[in-house]
Amino acid sequence: MKLFFQKNDLVSAIQIVGRAVASKTTMSIMECILIDATEGQISLTGNKSEFGIETICPGVIEEAGKIALEAKLFTEIVKRLPQTEGNNLCIETEENGNCIIRCEKSVFKIMGRNAEEFPSLPSVEKQEAITVSQFSLRNMINQTIFSTANGENNKKMAGEYFEIKDNLFSITSLDGHRISIRKTFLKDSYSEQSAIVPKEVLSDLSKIMTGGLEDMVEMYFSGQYLLFHYENTTVVTQLVDGEYFHVKQMLSTDYETKIMVNRKQLLEDIDRARIMARDNDKQPLILKIADDSLSLKIISDLGRMDAEIPVKQEGKDLLIGFNPNFLMDALQNIEEEEVSLYFTIPRSPVFIRDKEENYIYMILPVNFNADQVE
Amino acid sequence: MKLFFQKNDLVSAIQIVGRAVASKTTMSIMECILIDATEGQISLTGNKSEFGIETICPGVIEEAGKIALEAKLFTEIVKRLPQTEGNNLCIETEENGNCIIRCEKSVFKIMGRNAEEFPSLPSVEKQEAITVSQFSLRNMINQTIFSTANGENNKKMAGEYFEIKDNLFSITSLDGHRISIRKTFLKDSYSEQSAIVPKEVLSDLSKIMTGGLEDMVEMYFSGQYLLFHYENTTVVTQLVDGEYFHVKQMLSTDYETKIMVNRKQLLEDIDRARIMARDNDKQPLILKIADDSLSLKIISDLGRMDAEIPVKQEGKDLLIGFNPNFLMDALQNIEEEEVSLYFTIPRSPVFIRDKEENYIYMILPVNFNADQVE
Repeated sequence: MKLFFQKNDLVSAIQIVGRAVASKTTMSIMECILIDATEGQISLTGNKSEFGIETICPGVIEEAGKIALEAKLFTEIVKRLPQTEGNNLCIETEENGNCIIRCEKSVFKIMGRNAEEFPSLPSVEKQEAITVSQFSLRNMINQTIFSTANGENNKKMAGEYFEIKDNLFSITSLDGHRISIRKTFLKDSYSEQSAIVPKEVLSDLSKIMTGGLEDMVEMYFSGQYLLFHYENTTVVTQLVDGEYFHVKQMLSTDYETKIMVNRKQLLEDIDRARIMARDNDKQPLILKIADDSLSLKIISDLGRMDAEIPVKQEGKDLLIGFNPNFLMDALQNIEEEEVSLYFTIPRSPVFIRDKEENYIYMILPVNFNADQVE
Repeated sequence: MKLFFQKNDLVSAIQIVGRAVASKTTMSIMECILIDATEGQISLTGNKSEFGIETICPGVIEEAGKIALEAKLFTEIVKRLPQTEGNNLCIETEENGNCIIRCEKSVFKIMGRNAEEFPSLPSVEKQEAITVSQFSLRNMINQTIFSTANGENNKKMAGEYFEIKDNLFSITSLDGHRISIRKTFLKDSYSEQSAIVPKEVLSDLSKIMTGGLEDMVEMYFSGQYLLFHYENTTVVTQLVDGEYFHVKQMLSTDYETKIMVNRKQLLEDIDRARIMARDNDKQPLILKIADDSLSLKIISDLGRMDAEIPVKQEGKDLLIGFNPNFLMDALQNIEEEEVSLYFTIPRSPVFIRDKEENYIYMILPVNFNADQVE
């Protein structure tokens, strides 16, 4: 095998597939990146078994072939090679399995691994392509992924629920304390589809998929796999088995108290309050709503903080406690300048949502001692 | 006590004195910042016993007094208070020792500590003020501090040697493998002074002292202490006892081989070579000088790297090995585009120095096996 690349093309491709390289594994071949130039184009692949990424890298094939290279070493070498224009980064294999990486007067020789050992990506039957902008998918993931759990108790909580119904696409996550939902309308209508997608692949996908509103990504649902395809890159992931939680039953649009508040101001005050919860994140933040004003109070061993924000209030006065971090997470993932919070009673959750329900954040309240309220 | 500040003034002052706050100590008062407004101005002090920092903070004293506040908590609170103009950040003590920190509608109440418990800075007799620009002192520290040792075996190696002789000011550090020296000329001449200054205080000083070439800092040598004074800030440090190493005996200007080489190109190639030493930083980088060319070679379990750089050579050909990290450290701390390296024999150190000897970097070579050279 003898290939020529522009350095920057190869660096980009390595960074993409590097997301799917296992870092600690008993199968050391999974710590490699596969370079395959046997089919008229050059593909790079990382495959950590839960999910895999393949991308086509521009380059010149002087001699076809394939090889697997230890990802960390390969990445470091390519990144540090001289910054040059033109296809003058050469990767060449020797008969003994060694690999020579050369650029100008810098020459590396490292051991290669047999490409046949590298596990190929699962073949996914591409039936219906569901098309969404990279921008929307990336945002929907980022704005919900924080309320997944680690999956120790329930694997489904470590995934996000993708649902397609006609032209509505929604992503839902929940962790037992809160629910996050983001929705978007698609240009076309599709048959009903749903899947629980592991959060790891979504976190990585949202980082490598950098396109805007006009750049599309195709999703293919196929049994136990979901395939994403955009530009030169394909991401294939296994799905979490089983039926997702019945989230609709947990949602409600009834309320007794509604406040409209400046999101940034509320965020800043909650962030201040968290200082007092430094040594004990179970310390509740107590919200008191009365007279078009929201008072925030937190009391801990470190001291106390009080703050007050003007709000537009509808309905009853209320006293209710929350984990300040959960409120922060939701508020940080909304763009609007003003947000609406809907409450019923102190033992019921708050809903933060917009009119069109493009986003719904539900957070359960926490108990607090009466002596913390004076 | 009741004081008013502009938030940004207080944040700056806290960041300066915070460098001298102990983080883990058996004396919890040393984890505090002292606010002292008893003498007509407001001073903040941190004192971690090895060294202390005091700075004057602009503000309004409505009621004189002093208090010590737990530094970490105090810092977090002040940083997160609303960003406002004017002296509307208020710090007020209550009779029970509590402290109220207020800005607009955000109010914190935390416990204060008795200011009398706070250890005062050592009083240093200010005799002769040695004046140097903040820019020069900061650079001289940063460009030598990397070759100090941790001081486990020899406390003097964990310090930097300051020497004043007439109008020449030099800083020297060494760690048993290398020596770094930086010199600068002062505007005035002074009596002879020298001291071994602990590297911790120098590292912190170089970070808080942000002035340029026109901004001066005064140094006062006084027995076991060295005092730095600039603008509103005073830094007092203990010195390391004893006589410093006789560095002059280890220096030499004789050479058998001299090369002049592009510094950036050499740095990049050494950085590449270090990839191969990833799992074993004892792996020597072998330099071969011949025919106006410098060949770099490193061989390890991971593979090998070869590179070649054109140089201007004077004198004999040479084959010599170095720890690549030591070469990197020195070359990174030189500004010149082209550097000169002076060698004698493979068992003798390299000297990297400019004509005026404003900088001298000496690095000992390492042995390598003959089978690594082919």
